[in-house]
Amino acid sequence: MSGNGIGMLFRLTTFGESHGAALGGVVEGCPAGLPLCEADLQGDLDRRRPGQNRFTTGRREPDQVRILSGVFEGVTTGTPIGLMIENTDQRSRDYSAIQELFRPGHADYVYWRKHGVRDYRGGGRASARETAMRVAGGAVARKLLATVGVRIRGALIAMGEERIDRSGWDWDQVELNPFFSPDAGAVERFAALLDGVRNAGDSVGAMLEVVASGVGVGWGEPVFDRLDADLAKALMSVNAVKGVEIGSGMEMGSGRGSQLADEMFPDGQGGVTFGSNHAGGILGGMSTGQEIVARVALKPTSSIRIPRRTVDVTGQAREVVTEGRHDPCVGIRAVPVVEAMVALTLADHWLRWRSREGWRL
Amino acid sequence: MSGNGIGMLFRLTTFGESHGAALGGVVEGCPAGLPLCEADLQGDLDRRRPGQNRFTTGRREPDQVRILSGVFEGVTTGTPIGLMIENTDQRSRDYSAIQELFRPGHADYVYWRKHGVRDYRGGGRASARETAMRVAGGAVARKLLATVGVRIRGALIAMGEERIDRSGWDWDQVELNPFFSPDAGAVERFAALLDGVRNAGDSVGAMLEVVASGVGVGWGEPVFDRLDADLAKALMSVNAVKGVEIGSGMEMGSGRGSQLADEMFPDGQGGVTFGSNHAGGILGGMSTGQEIVARVALKPTSSIRIPRRTVDVTGQAREVVTEGRHDPCVGIRAVPVVEAMVALTLADHWLRWRSREGWRL
Amino acid sequence: MSGNGIGMLFRLTTFGESHGAALGGVVEGCPAGLPLCEADLQGDLDRRRPGQNRFTTGRREPDQVRILSGVFEGVTTGTPIGLMIENTDQRSRDYSAIQELFRPGHADYVYWRKHGVRDYRGGGRASARETAMRVAGGAVARKLLATVGVRIRGALIAMGEERIDRSGWDWDQVELNPFFSPDAGAVERFAALLDGVRNAGDSVGAMLEVVASGVGVGWGEPVFDRLDADLAKALMSVNAVKGVEIGSGMEMGSGRGSQLADEMFPDGQGGVTFGSNHAGGILGGMSTGQEIVARVALKPTSSIRIPRRTVDVTGQAREVVTEGRHDPCVGIRAVPVVEAMVALTLADHWLRWRSREGWRL
Amino acid sequence: MSGNGIGMLFRLTTFGESHGAALGGVVEGCPAGLPLCEADLQGDLDRRRPGQNRFTTGRREPDQVRILSGVFEGVTTGTPIGLMIENTDQRSRDYSAIQELFRPGHADYVYWRKHGVRDYRGGGRASARETAMRVAGGAVARKLLATVGVRIRGALIAMGEERIDRSGWDWDQVELNPFFSPDAGAVERFAALLDGVRNAGDSVGAMLEVVASGVGVGWGEPVFDRLDADLAKALMSVNAVKGVEIGSGMEMGSGRGSQLADEMFPDGQGGVTFGSNHAGGILGGMSTGQEIVARVALKPTSSIRIPRRTVDVTGQAREVVTEGRHDPCVGIRAVPVVEAMVALTLADHWLRWRSREGWRL
Repeated sequence: MSGNGIGMLFRLTTFGESHGAALGGVVEGCPAGLPLCEADLQGDLDRRRPGQNRFTTGRREPDQVRILSGVFEGVTTGTPIGLMIENTDQRSRDYSAIQELFRPGHADYVYWRKHGVRDYRGGGRASARETAMRVAGGAVARKLLATVGVRIRGALIAMGEERIDRSGWDWDQVELNPFFSPDAGAVERFAALLDGVRNAGDSVGAMLEVVASGVGVGWGEPVFDRLDADLAKALMSVNAVKGVEIGSGMEMGSGRGSQLADEMFPDGQGGVTFGSNHAGGILGGMSTGQEIVARVALKPTSSIRIPRRTVDVTGQAREVVTEGRHDPCVGIRAVPVVEAMVALTLADHWLRWRSREGWRL
Repeated sequence: MSGNGIGMLFRLTTFGESHGAALGGVVEGCPAGLPLCEADLQGDLDRRRPGQNRFTTGRREPDQVRILSGVFEGVTTGTPIGLMIENTDQRSRDYSAIQELFRPGHADYVYWRKHGVRDYRGGGRASARETAMRVAGGAVARKLLATVGVRIRGALIAMGEERIDRSGWDWDQVELNPFFSPDAGAVERFAALLDGVRNAGDSVGAMLEVVASGVGVGWGEPVFDRLDADLAKALMSVNAVKGVEIGSGMEMGSGRGSQLADEMFPDGQGGVTFGSNHAGGILGGMSTGQEIVARVALKPTSSIRIPRRTVDVTGQAREVVTEGRHDPCVGIRAVPVVEAMVALTLADHWLRWRSREGWRL
Repeated sequence: MSGNGIGMLFRLTTFGESHGAALGGVVEGCPAGLPLCEADLQGDLDRRRPGQNRFTTGRREPDQVRILSGVFEGVTTGTPIGLMIENTDQRSRDYSAIQELFRPGHADYVYWRKHGVRDYRGGGRASARETAMRVAGGAVARKLLATVGVRIRGALIAMGEERIDRSGWDWDQVELNPFFSPDAGAVERFAALLDGVRNAGDSVGAMLEVVASGVGVGWGEPVFDRLDADLAKALMSVNAVKGVEIGSGMEMGSGRGSQLADEMFPDGQGGVTFGSNHAGGILGGMSTGQEIVARVALKPTSSIRIPRRTVDVTGQAREVVTEGRHDPCVGIRAVPVVEAMVALTLADHWLRWRSREGWRL
Repeated sequence: MSGNGIGMLFRLTTFGESHGAALGGVVEGCPAGLPLCEADLQGDLDRRRPGQNRFTTGRREPDQVRILSGVFEGVTTGTPIGLMIENTDQRSRDYSAIQELFRPGHADYVYWRKHGVRDYRGGGRASARETAMRVAGGAVARKLLATVGVRIRGALIAMGEERIDRSGWDWDQVELNPFFSPDAGAVERFAALLDGVRNAGDSVGAMLEVVASGVGVGWGEPVFDRLDADLAKALMSVNAVKGVEIGSGMEMGSGRGSQLADEMFPDGQGGVTFGSNHAGGILGGMSTGQEIVARVALKPTSSIRIPRRTVDVTGQAREVVTEGRHDPCVGIRAVPVVEAMVALTLADHWLRWRSREGWRL
């Protein structure tokens, strides 16, 4: 396959299977002179790391990232930044039971049909483990964007039938609970729901929201490489994501123009302020200067202990039960991943914007 | 700006402003030997054309497409297919009233901030008129895909608070009513809603669904160029689209793995059949062989007669009323557009699939 | 085929066959605010136009270019610039004699083998006529680069066994003779040579040199997208070009490091000056600030009146004589074409440079 | 910088500095099912490795490559192939003397001007050491192409003023002498020349030729992504290359059409044979089925012991002498590198060809 890279000017290319020797990534396009060290990446990786509480998989993945190139004497040199995480916890025997089976809702059937071979160990390239490199690369983008005042934060806003109360939104809460919930009041409900799901051997979906503040006006390139289009691609490319919304999203379909167009006012300093943000900070594919708001829905993982009907590689009807250490809600650990995808997309479009704007002929 | 092209192997590049001399497009990558003539394109263009009934803009845009290259003696030659639609109805005076104003919810403010100049005539490049070339290019993709049995159909499934009854879904109805509704029973409700919206000088959003049947197994390239990620980009790039769903979409976020993973069964002929299609025909970013199902929400157009508060180019507070001939529901005419975007994306991934699969080393 | 576009940020995509309805092009990435009109493009097109003297083909191609989009009130708007030249002199009957034959040294055999169909009229897409759009697009790049002081000039330095005397180089002479010769003393020799070649029904090759001055330091991106690598691609993509040199070029292979490395000296103003320019203004794939110097060799055209042995579409041995109006030396009119390719490449790399350099974190 | 990847469908992305932790590469697009192991790559790496005889640098670089992903149970899985070579011989102190100086003819000056920082240890990213990953990636391409009968071989044909006698060309000789000379008779002359150059503390240029046999008809995509254009880019991107020729190359500029167009004849088996190969196997940017022949000239390395005038980072006039272990003729070890670049380019165009050809609608 190709398609292992994303971005035009700021570009991340990744490789690596769940149970191979290592995960790797290459970050191209980071300008020279940015202070960068492994600790800058490790912070986000640790937020994504499993095994930190009872609500995520029991696998232990230290996910220690190494910077192999592109940094010299503490700053980026402009050359590509090579990243690697060695796989240390490769209990392949966990998966031998399903070597001949296809899990319903899992990619292994299509990998096998597409390629004729497949790495059945832990999902191979289709494993959520692949997202570790997105987080590492996204951390570089995040640090770059911080130099121009851009901040990217994500949160879990729903799990199964439980939703946060948006009136209780507090960004500071996000890092204080195991669900990345911005609403402290929802944490107990999420915990109860998830305990029930796990005990039942089931899994549950989730909804996440990402907000980027500090983005300038005019990032994004109509017609096809719109900022929202590239965000949609970046977010939909994350494992398990099945829906992407910008601003008011799907609700736009049932509203009126007189309610949903964000009115504009002088801000008293020569600029413009908006009366609302239904557009999610993007009009005509370009940033408006408001906060950029995106939401995604992640499906429940297909690796569950409840028996499911399926077929095996010989085409026979079978029943499959996925034992092993799986997250009952993959959406939780996806918060740093969707932040990373937004960071990568914004870094790319910031460079694209710089190439032609911010000056006049 | 760059970003006026979409697709890697099957690629459409477009140009042209709403009130410029012409709209144009270049289709690259169509294999040689495909029978093609202007009538093949005109059919879809006519479905998108305004002025055909009281529910769309009164503008008359004959939208007569010319093939300028790439076809010889009735078949494609493998060279790029140049397309052009001359703009014939350029009543620029309709827009002079808003030359100094920014419409809330419209891209003209960000164009002006991004570039320092803007073509204020009818939205320029940001006009929905730009989508005509998507439809023309998509028609080539559609005809190419038909040679391998792929069929792409779209429908309007909701407008404002009105929804179709999915039990009444009949594809044959779609072309028989002005709303592309697959449910004949909803037509009267849509008509009443839209008459009310138009009389109020307002606009209304809509939801569309697109279904592709006949797609083989394994189209799409993990990790970043997933079929669903590329569909999300293609669909989100359409004017006014603010949300994209694949299969069960946003509802996945509230479900259980035991309900939402599509079980698999032997089909009795050596193949596989699925018990449901929550995945929308895509797993791990690759097609499963089921129908591919995508949904989009389009916001109500920002060009309305109800007064809205805004600013002008000097930063002063103003009120804007958009007179002129605007669709009260841009979602209706977007049906052929979203079909085209799906066709373009599938054609590209079919060629990508062909490059490496369908044979064995 | 794909591959009809060149450039990442400043990008030209072209379409059109020699005897089709029109040639077209799309220029993406030109920043907004550049004054541009059709006359800016027509100047270079006229330099390339045939039929202006006895040394080029007698075909009359007015090559009147139209700008269809991207320019409003005399300046570029940042949107893609659509270009079109209608084909007016389509004497298809000139070519009917060779409809069944493949010309040795011409692309029609491989087109036919690759695609199974071919447009046999005048070479179709393989005609040198395709280069008109390169010149038109290159003129936009040239005007953009002029805003930062870059100037691109080309000249013919050899034809067959005749060479210019470099000591007589005078750029002002280039536009004063029909050969683009910078050496007035060589004009008579070129004329005599070419008259002999034409009378013999033969054709002759040529060598061209292009020089770009005013390029800043550091344009070009190692490792693969080096400035010289992209220039080599751009120049080798021109019809009939079979060799590309940068600076001292092929002679570098026989020299010594002590002679060929360009020494550096303080320029007395805080900068650097070089003692020579064997590198042709490019080191490590990046511009040094010196003049960029490239050379190409063009083969003699394969369309000649001297009989040649070949095969026909049924595989039978035949003899072919190409009557009609062909340039005996295609290298002459290629001067504006190679200038255009250098301009397109530099404009792209200037934007790439701007995206990350010219500022500090 | 971006630009660290080459190829559209078969793509190599590299990272790593001469004296960093490691060199790395990602090979995307290799079809599944190709038998592959590290020994397949090591063979070509060993041919490029320094320190094997007195004619190359005395540095010891074991260049042991590891495959980190994309191969399972001995065959490729279709996922990206991650490659790594750890740097083991990092004698940074060798370079401390030139930390403040720019070597004439070397890229360090432009790196410093472009980025404001530079990794002065051994040339950093500009070191010839970067080419090791090209060789590793090229070895994958080579093995893939072998499945359809393509073979790629390179040779040194000139060094300084010494040239091989083409009548003595014997491919078997190439691996039997330290110069990759196909002419056994030239080896002694090359040795004498190089001993003299090294003793003088100087360096010398070289010319290489690469031949690909077994390539089908019609690989390559006009207009801009011609096979010869992409080969020119790939070859010119190799360190020190300053000129690229296809077939008769620069000599085409002085010839006649009646001599240089390769005549065609029936081959008696329904196909075609050519009377000569001045075109180097490429017409109109597409392969003809003949051998593809390319030639490059490499400049002498700028790292020499003869004193050269230069400036330092403060702009002061200085003299520089490059001590340390440098190849007196970098062209020798470049043979496997240019083979790799041809292999990468052909693998990419073979996949591009497969995507649309080799079948009929």
